[in-house]
Amino acid sequence: MYYWDYLGLDEVLGSQQLASASGGRRPAHDELLFIITHQAFELWFKQILWELDAAIETLGLDPVPEPSMGQVVRHLERIVSIQPLLVQQFQVLATMTPLDFLDFRDELIPASGFQSLQFRLIENRLGLDPGGRLKIKGARYTSRLSAEHAARLEASESEPTLLGVLDAWLARTPFLRFGSFDFWAEYRRAVEVMIERDRGLIASNPSLDEVVRQQQLDAFEVTSATFATLFERERWDELRAAGKRRLSHGSFLAALLISLYRDEPALHLPFRLLTALIDLDEGFTAFRNAHAQLVHRSIGGRIGTGGTSGHEYLEAAARKHRVFTDLFDLATYHLPRRELPVLPPQVRSQMAFRYQSEPDAGPAVG
Amino acid sequence: MYYWDYLGLDEVLGSQQLASASGGRRPAHDELLFIITHQAFELWFKQILWELDAAIETLGLDPVPEPSMGQVVRHLERIVSIQPLLVQQFQVLATMTPLDFLDFRDELIPASGFQSLQFRLIENRLGLDPGGRLKIKGARYTSRLSAEHAARLEASESEPTLLGVLDAWLARTPFLRFGSFDFWAEYRRAVEVMIERDRGLIASNPSLDEVVRQQQLDAFEVTSATFATLFERERWDELRAAGKRRLSHGSFLAALLISLYRDEPALHLPFRLLTALIDLDEGFTAFRNAHAQLVHRSIGGRIGTGGTSGHEYLEAAARKHRVFTDLFDLATYHLPRRELPVLPPQVRSQMAFRYQSEPDAGPAVG
Amino acid sequence: MYYWDYLGLDEVLGSQQLASASGGRRPAHDELLFIITHQAFELWFKQILWELDAAIETLGLDPVPEPSMGQVVRHLERIVSIQPLLVQQFQVLATMTPLDFLDFRDELIPASGFQSLQFRLIENRLGLDPGGRLKIKGARYTSRLSAEHAARLEASESEPTLLGVLDAWLARTPFLRFGSFDFWAEYRRAVEVMIERDRGLIASNPSLDEVVRQQQLDAFEVTSATFATLFERERWDELRAAGKRRLSHGSFLAALLISLYRDEPALHLPFRLLTALIDLDEGFTAFRNAHAQLVHRSIGGRIGTGGTSGHEYLEAAARKHRVFTDLFDLATYHLPRRELPVLPPQVRSQMAFRYQSEPDAGPAVG
Amino acid sequence: MYYWDYLGLDEVLGSQQLASASGGRRPAHDELLFIITHQAFELWFKQILWELDAAIETLGLDPVPEPSMGQVVRHLERIVSIQPLLVQQFQVLATMTPLDFLDFRDELIPASGFQSLQFRLIENRLGLDPGGRLKIKGARYTSRLSAEHAARLEASESEPTLLGVLDAWLARTPFLRFGSFDFWAEYRRAVEVMIERDRGLIASNPSLDEVVRQQQLDAFEVTSATFATLFERERWDELRAAGKRRLSHGSFLAALLISLYRDEPALHLPFRLLTALIDLDEGFTAFRNAHAQLVHRSIGGRIGTGGTSGHEYLEAAARKHRVFTDLFDLATYHLPRRELPVLPPQVRSQMAFRYQSEPDAGPAVG
Repeated sequence: MYYWDYLGLDEVLGSQQLASASGGRRPAHDELLFIITHQAFELWFKQILWELDAAIETLGLDPVPEPSMGQVVRHLERIVSIQPLLVQQFQVLATMTPLDFLDFRDELIPASGFQSLQFRLIENRLGLDPGGRLKIKGARYTSRLSAEHAARLEASESEPTLLGVLDAWLARTPFLRFGSFDFWAEYRRAVEVMIERDRGLIASNPSLDEVVRQQQLDAFEVTSATFATLFERERWDELRAAGKRRLSHGSFLAALLISLYRDEPALHLPFRLLTALIDLDEGFTAFRNAHAQLVHRSIGGRIGTGGTSGHEYLEAAARKHRVFTDLFDLATYHLPRRELPVLPPQVRSQMAFRYQSEPDAGPAVG
Repeated sequence: MYYWDYLGLDEVLGSQQLASASGGRRPAHDELLFIITHQAFELWFKQILWELDAAIETLGLDPVPEPSMGQVVRHLERIVSIQPLLVQQFQVLATMTPLDFLDFRDELIPASGFQSLQFRLIENRLGLDPGGRLKIKGARYTSRLSAEHAARLEASESEPTLLGVLDAWLARTPFLRFGSFDFWAEYRRAVEVMIERDRGLIASNPSLDEVVRQQQLDAFEVTSATFATLFERERWDELRAAGKRRLSHGSFLAALLISLYRDEPALHLPFRLLTALIDLDEGFTAFRNAHAQLVHRSIGGRIGTGGTSGHEYLEAAARKHRVFTDLFDLATYHLPRRELPVLPPQVRSQMAFRYQSEPDAGPAVG
Repeated sequence: MYYWDYLGLDEVLGSQQLASASGGRRPAHDELLFIITHQAFELWFKQILWELDAAIETLGLDPVPEPSMGQVVRHLERIVSIQPLLVQQFQVLATMTPLDFLDFRDELIPASGFQSLQFRLIENRLGLDPGGRLKIKGARYTSRLSAEHAARLEASESEPTLLGVLDAWLARTPFLRFGSFDFWAEYRRAVEVMIERDRGLIASNPSLDEVVRQQQLDAFEVTSATFATLFERERWDELRAAGKRRLSHGSFLAALLISLYRDEPALHLPFRLLTALIDLDEGFTAFRNAHAQLVHRSIGGRIGTGGTSGHEYLEAAARKHRVFTDLFDLATYHLPRRELPVLPPQVRSQMAFRYQSEPDAGPAVG
Repeated sequence: MYYWDYLGLDEVLGSQQLASASGGRRPAHDELLFIITHQAFELWFKQILWELDAAIETLGLDPVPEPSMGQVVRHLERIVSIQPLLVQQFQVLATMTPLDFLDFRDELIPASGFQSLQFRLIENRLGLDPGGRLKIKGARYTSRLSAEHAARLEASESEPTLLGVLDAWLARTPFLRFGSFDFWAEYRRAVEVMIERDRGLIASNPSLDEVVRQQQLDAFEVTSATFATLFERERWDELRAAGKRRLSHGSFLAALLISLYRDEPALHLPFRLLTALIDLDEGFTAFRNAHAQLVHRSIGGRIGTGGTSGHEYLEAAARKHRVFTDLFDLATYHLPRRELPVLPPQVRSQMAFRYQSEPDAGPAVG
């Protein structure tokens, strides 16, 4: 077993065919960088798909075996560790100046990064809504691919997604209603108490002049309206049908519960999972923004080799192709700890490890 | 001389007053991180201003002593080296969860990062057009500052900017017209030859069907129109008056010349300068995008402590508050090397070092 | 409440006194960078101490409340997120060339980064053995500090350390012996079986020639000897007395158990904790190595302003001042999963969440 | 032209053969990460060799055409931009735990990263002295390679190196002696004046007590001795023969001149070149240190799959396999600007651009 053979280096290091050198011409020096950077992207995309597939498979089990939860989180955290590499690779590619790119750019037409099958698969596996994709001149995103790759991509639209298995997993959380404990009711009450009390403080505060008082009361109406979206399930479902929410109402509540009581042992890994998903979404946004900048400095306002509108398309995708915005929005609905409903002891006990929840179990870990 | 005293550590390390701990309360653990991260931002902003001021002062000289050009570039490259720190600091701050932020967030109202005097000064010093700033509820960007700071900021609007001194410096480039060499005319001719030839190839290519032929000819019209903007000075001036171009027409041409003939000794540092400015602009875009993400995950869709609209404002600023987009757009007007006008020997000779441009100067460096 | 006042920016941004500008001289441009970089270091050191203190306090409780374990891990992971900043700050400082440093270096003598009180406190709080510190010309590490700071540092030597509370916490792990389950005995048996079986395979493999066979058998003796260190408690204690091991024998076994069965719910956070400590140790090593490189390029082979031997001292410290090498060495004693002792069901059940370990608890989270 | 075909993705993405999956077994999940990380390393090593070869070829010309100098610097700066990627890839690989590695580690024996042909080629191309390489059990570094690769590596030992062409290029610098200007003599005089004056100040300072005076005088002897190494060419040659210096005496002086007068136009790019080489050396040191840490946490104190001594070997290589330490050591011999010999106007004029050095050349750039 040689290192060289194990890694298939004859193939990997033999796959840089410089288009500029075809026909025996002197190669454009920077084309190798262009090829290798893109190959490295694709290698990492393969790794990301590998981790995504494993995460979806495990999180899609019903029930998810608890000892597998750590692995799901590690799959996602690994992707998060890869993302800064991708951003940095754009910085390496930025050492190729526009003039150097022009030495071989015409040779590439109409090939384009827009044709990265694996990146489109990643988007679909994450749960990007095919209907919500930005269109380029009205064309479907599969239009520039070989028939085989287009078919593979379309097939992936009906495969399980990370968003989908997350939604189903959250929906099964036992603690939203546990015995007589009803999280939604308790949380709603806490919100109402908080709002009413603060509104009362403002209304009765003798030191406020009337203009300021009215401004502050108006601000309360905004806050109330924000929470109302969460309390009215139908309103939520409308937003979801319009693509403005992706998680079901119950799953969002479960995510809220997890984020508010994250320190209970049984919620720790679920909280890690939600955090990893936020990091993941942010990582792809950073990747798209870095890509947009690179394209802008490389080709200015030109049309891309693939006919796309270049950096403006990529900037728009950075904003529109996010998948887990609901998890970012959880923060909208957080309450200060002192306002949070207290979990009943019988609920907390069920969230603890067995050896700790029994009086005679002996000393805890630590 | 002690390290501690030299660095003023009594003051620096004594300036973290946790609002959550006022009145003898138990402090919110994460408030220290919040304060220190922002203090570190402000320290680096001070350093950035220091470098910006020095760069503006030197580049604003007429003429700029050639031995000072390296220093101008180093000032800017230093800022570029600081920017990744700023982005990374947001990642550190992201370890504070929304729930932890709520432990002290209300104490901060109405203080807001929007009030960072130094960051606004940086924007003005770079050359952000005060009229092109995004407005928040119609308020001027100085409205939330103390009178002293607002005055300082408004004064800065009429001080020299990096964009301004760059424009003036570029406009003085001797090589746009040097003896009988007229860069604009030569470049225009090269563009026209290239376009006509390629249009002819398409028109006469027997293997194209008519639909494709027409598509390709249409594409040529787009390319022609793009170049026309550059060739018609009045059109350029209109775009500039509308804020869509920031450099004067002549300065843009000078920047184009520099980027196309960057390897001539006299153009090397000018090319480094343009590259550093592109990097700088990109670095602030990355900073704003990272800020937007951090705000989204920290407060969701809430209104910021300063009353701004949060992450959407910051994302918009990342797109709109760029200063050196003209330099990114240079790439639009690049020609392949084989199409470039050849610099006459007498021009190239003037761009060389004296000891090399004389036949009897002896061996060159290297 | 203004942003400026909340952050104490009058003090923080007013604390850059350029020694080169004293007496009304023209300041050395780069001294500001030198000061600000070091102030930023110290701000982050304060944050690191804040997190370290909190982690030590919580992990030092007996018992550690399980809901606090997540917080301990987050304290350490936050430090890990800060460390790359510190490394990157050296890269910013490296934009100051040696010649620019000489413009003000003499003014600093004898101040030196060696006098960073906070960094020394961090080392002590981590658990760096005071007796194992590298000496500089035989002087104690407190010798260059003010009397007050020296006293504070010496006091810290007898305060609880992260290593110390980790050791005590690990020693209390209930699962090393749990009912009839004895981890040490089971693990030892698994190791012996594995070694004997593999030795037998080699001894009886007819296709090996005698030279290779003997080489492979010799290699087995090395492996056996490595494991023997772990099985002979007295040998371990000797190594520990000599400073080559820092954890007690029982604590090391507990760490081994955690790392081998990390996916059991009750061991997940403990495994995260061990991983964070490895990351933390690695982060400080990277910091010291980056410091060594910066010093080498800044002053070459000169003596530092503080009289230390410069980069060679720092490189040696990167190797010798590590605290958690025992945790790195855990990998030496890992067995492939197929060779690991199987945890008895009654042990696994105790490591699970209560609601899951009861047959009628209903569906699990997920 | 499809993106997929242009990038050879059938080959690149088809080259991950998991040893753990041979014979139809269930693959070890993390083996893909292991393979892809190493393939990405090798892709980037290919790119580094491509840039190194180009830099060596151009810098090896006699004379180096001045317009090519920018390209040499860009080749090296591109490598410097790649190096942080390599370090970060180790952080991705660190998400594979030792237990996960054991799932497939035995399958790899005896393959080892020690067998990376390309990394050894990089070392040789940089100019690592084959005789100065660390030995592993007395074996040559080619011993674990296929005959073909070993031969290729040995051949590379006699090919031009970056250090070699740098040395030759520096040796040809015209400005060490230019007309009546003799840099070495001037510099030596400046050093002697500085030392004598400072020694006199100490000797005659009435406020020093005798002990301190003697200490300071002793320190001067050290400084004198350090400079003496540079002034005595034979002593330098001895150190060079012993491998403690790599540049010839004259080349080191040229590098010193460049670093001291870097702002003269003709020295700007040479100074960039020296800086890039320091960055490059530092980047490989960081790479080796990161590798050492990764190996330590992955396999503890075990012997590597290739039989090497693991992390300690790698740490030692990080210290010993540096190539451009002479350039770091330049800082040892810098003088404060006020002590530097002033370049005569006729020398400075030759270092300027032609159009600027003539009175009637019109306005300068800027």
